[in-house]
Amino acid sequence: MELRHLVDLGDIETGKIMDILTTAGAIMKNPGYYSDSCHAKVMATLFYEPSTRTRMSFEAAMLRLGGSVIGFNDPQNSSVSKGESLKDTITMVGNYADIIAMRHYSEGAAKAASIFSRVPVINAGDGGHLHPTQTLTDIFTLTQTKGRLDDLTIGLCGDLKYGRTVHSLIKTMSRFKNNSFVLISTPELSVPDYIKTFMDEHGCEYRQADSLEAEIGGLDVLYMTRIQRERFKSEEEYERQKGVFILDGEKMKKAKKDMAVLHPLPRVDEITYDVDDDPRALYFRQSEYGLYARMSLILHILENGEKRLDARPQQNTEKCCGNLKCITHSEAYLPHLEEDGNCAYCESRLL
Amino acid sequence: MELRHLVDLGDIETGKIMDILTTAGAIMKNPGYYSDSCHAKVMATLFYEPSTRTRMSFEAAMLRLGGSVIGFNDPQNSSVSKGESLKDTITMVGNYADIIAMRHYSEGAAKAASIFSRVPVINAGDGGHLHPTQTLTDIFTLTQTKGRLDDLTIGLCGDLKYGRTVHSLIKTMSRFKNNSFVLISTPELSVPDYIKTFMDEHGCEYRQADSLEAEIGGLDVLYMTRIQRERFKSEEEYERQKGVFILDGEKMKKAKKDMAVLHPLPRVDEITYDVDDDPRALYFRQSEYGLYARMSLILHILENGEKRLDARPQQNTEKCCGNLKCITHSEAYLPHLEEDGNCAYCESRLL
Amino acid sequence: MELRHLVDLGDIETGKIMDILTTAGAIMKNPGYYSDSCHAKVMATLFYEPSTRTRMSFEAAMLRLGGSVIGFNDPQNSSVSKGESLKDTITMVGNYADIIAMRHYSEGAAKAASIFSRVPVINAGDGGHLHPTQTLTDIFTLTQTKGRLDDLTIGLCGDLKYGRTVHSLIKTMSRFKNNSFVLISTPELSVPDYIKTFMDEHGCEYRQADSLEAEIGGLDVLYMTRIQRERFKSEEEYERQKGVFILDGEKMKKAKKDMAVLHPLPRVDEITYDVDDDPRALYFRQSEYGLYARMSLILHILENGEKRLDARPQQNTEKCCGNLKCITHSEAYLPHLEEDGNCAYCESRLL
Repeated sequence: MELRHLVDLGDIETGKIMDILTTAGAIMKNPGYYSDSCHAKVMATLFYEPSTRTRMSFEAAMLRLGGSVIGFNDPQNSSVSKGESLKDTITMVGNYADIIAMRHYSEGAAKAASIFSRVPVINAGDGGHLHPTQTLTDIFTLTQTKGRLDDLTIGLCGDLKYGRTVHSLIKTMSRFKNNSFVLISTPELSVPDYIKTFMDEHGCEYRQADSLEAEIGGLDVLYMTRIQRERFKSEEEYERQKGVFILDGEKMKKAKKDMAVLHPLPRVDEITYDVDDDPRALYFRQSEYGLYARMSLILHILENGEKRLDARPQQNTEKCCGNLKCITHSEAYLPHLEEDGNCAYCESRLL
Repeated sequence: MELRHLVDLGDIETGKIMDILTTAGAIMKNPGYYSDSCHAKVMATLFYEPSTRTRMSFEAAMLRLGGSVIGFNDPQNSSVSKGESLKDTITMVGNYADIIAMRHYSEGAAKAASIFSRVPVINAGDGGHLHPTQTLTDIFTLTQTKGRLDDLTIGLCGDLKYGRTVHSLIKTMSRFKNNSFVLISTPELSVPDYIKTFMDEHGCEYRQADSLEAEIGGLDVLYMTRIQRERFKSEEEYERQKGVFILDGEKMKKAKKDMAVLHPLPRVDEITYDVDDDPRALYFRQSEYGLYARMSLILHILENGEKRLDARPQQNTEKCCGNLKCITHSEAYLPHLEEDGNCAYCESRLL
Repeated sequence: MELRHLVDLGDIETGKIMDILTTAGAIMKNPGYYSDSCHAKVMATLFYEPSTRTRMSFEAAMLRLGGSVIGFNDPQNSSVSKGESLKDTITMVGNYADIIAMRHYSEGAAKAASIFSRVPVINAGDGGHLHPTQTLTDIFTLTQTKGRLDDLTIGLCGDLKYGRTVHSLIKTMSRFKNNSFVLISTPELSVPDYIKTFMDEHGCEYRQADSLEAEIGGLDVLYMTRIQRERFKSEEEYERQKGVFILDGEKMKKAKKDMAVLHPLPRVDEITYDVDDDPRALYFRQSEYGLYARMSLILHILENGEKRLDARPQQNTEKCCGNLKCITHSEAYLPHLEEDGNCAYCESRLL
């Protein structure tokens, strides 16, 4: 199967994902061998919403492959400030670059871009929807540190409601045998129903819990998440929740000797600093694994390098997307696309 | 003739312009051959006024020649925020870079920079005054798609008063035989008198018209322009004008089978999206031609690579420029230069 | 001695500094020889406080060594806007880059970063505290133009109180034989007592003076400084001081034929433009010397390339730093470090 774009990890066969992880491991072992693999290739990093960490990770990945980078990371300074459509910006950038990594504040933006792009598009985050290269980073970290992607008891702690990386990790790990999930959060921040349905449909064991201390002893992996201030309706709401479920040195004493602590970063105060020096704390090395995962992804995508415009899907529904954060609401020319009753861009219900 | 700076396309001999277009065509055919031509060379992109599109085009051009890029694209983050003069910034940057591409909000800024720069300066837009690489892009697009730069009936539609690319295209196409212009706009947005005088002096046929629909059938080239919100005194004025002269699929039916539709971009709503899929719609490919035109320009300029400070023109007039947007009003140390009664920086009348 | 980080030039042996200047001279003579020395290496420029000039100088230096650059130059767009600690940002960036050049608004920030960084950290300015590569630039300029670093009578003029480059230059030149200083300023802007103490302890002759005109005739070097608006408590205070001690063509007539005029730039109005064309005005060439000094510094630091985390100094005092601009006040996890009664980060007294 040709890997053309990466919008949603759910679109990629497991075999291809394993290939990407294998190549990532090879790059990590011998980076010098790959230091000119993308000579004369240009990546565009289009960040409609600033994200220093993700942008630097993509840029370092491309530069370490011998390629170069153009782009913007600031909506005010981007063409959009002159009212240009996403289609036009993507088409123009496709003339300058060989591959695009984009972050956008609207859900489904990467999918929309992929429809009109002559060059491959990598989704570097579309609103609260998807962030597939973070999940690629997470599972590459697990292969390198746990040595396997199956038979794992995975605890997920913190913001399980809005945390897109949590949802994506659950969906991806459900592809592998005998993984079970312990969902540790307050009721207000528990996983959405569609994720529970997903786990049921894929025969995944999971349990909801409300105490990190009580559960930590049974975990092979603990995936901590930040409670993002901006996800809350009010400052009070934020203050009330943020302190909940903090990982500290005391709780680590109850954990297995080989438990892996992961975190998508940035960390605020959900992990105390004394944990950083614990060998089981992998969240910083995780960001290094992310570099190699992205290098591998870029290599696999650029294998099929030539620019081309694929056949555009035709409008197949009159229904509108119910999600006001969906890209279809700001880009009127987009064909309405349906996938089993959901919007093909943001996956929300159609009206 | 040595090509040292590109401030105004009007300064460049037609023969040299044709050389640049020829090289651009060669690069387009075989980009790999040029992918290290600027190895170890550095371009500085100094954008005192943000322009993502133009900046990315210059940066991609330099990177695809094997060079690298430094710069800024944000006045607040630039040295100028500490009250540094243009002369000092250009002199400093000339120590770091081999070539400068600059956009500035003041008219005549590129000319001023070229006086003090030890390295070549390319004008990437100086206020509402000039944008020579856009015109280079436009005529390269014509050579590649129409196969000629003469015997063309060229329609220009939209904002012909403030659209600097329109004025520059008219001036440049007047160099070639048997081109005629159809100027399609409202009276309020018609071409300035000095452009009409220019066409008369150069024996160019032109006609003013007020209906795109009525004229489209006779055109070999249709150059559409955006009506820039910022060019208007008020929001009402903008709303009243912006809808005028929209190109859509219906009007395209009346056009010649081989008419070329150009647009400097960004497009807002002056061209409807159904036109995008018409093979005569060249405005997106135009931005790719712009990449090769800029690559060629950089190569031709860097042929004479060594840094040097040319003899500085001496003050030759006590007169002041009447144009308050002229760079001479913000940079007091600049010599007052006169060219047949006009300011040598912004080309306005001297008082 | 291994050169791991450059936080404070005072930490570097004189022999190592001379090695850096020697290599800088070699690079200047034959830049092409070094144009791939940092192939496949990545520098991160982390500018928590914008500084176009310094950032471009570091980026040009790395690019001219064949390396590449990632980074940010805008606090709002940086991870810190999500409340990330300096430790976490540095640790993450150390996974992407091979060397870090950072500017921060807090005093001692570079020292703090160096404690947690797996890759070398270069201090590109930490608040009003230190800016060692500017001093490296200054002394490289002197070796190249005066041919020596000793037996010099050095006049320092302007803001001697807040000008960190002045303090650093005095400290560094005190290492060499028979240098004397003429400190030309208003009483309000004279050098701090600890600098006077330093000169006394190092047996350096110095004199305070209040007239540039009276002193200029005796100087081998004149180091002019800008009076930074932001250093003043009020606009009135600024207006009252800024005009003082301006260098102009008249005063230059009284100076030695081979006096060297230096300035860290940017210059506002403390040097009139007619001085720029005087061969003794070296402040523009100084910024070019700065490029070669930084290239040499990067080469010397990357000689010991492998990433490693050095043993972290342990908290050795309960005292707090009295300086509210010190990094220890914003980054609570930092160990309190004492050096002969002073804070090891910002060098202020401990309470």
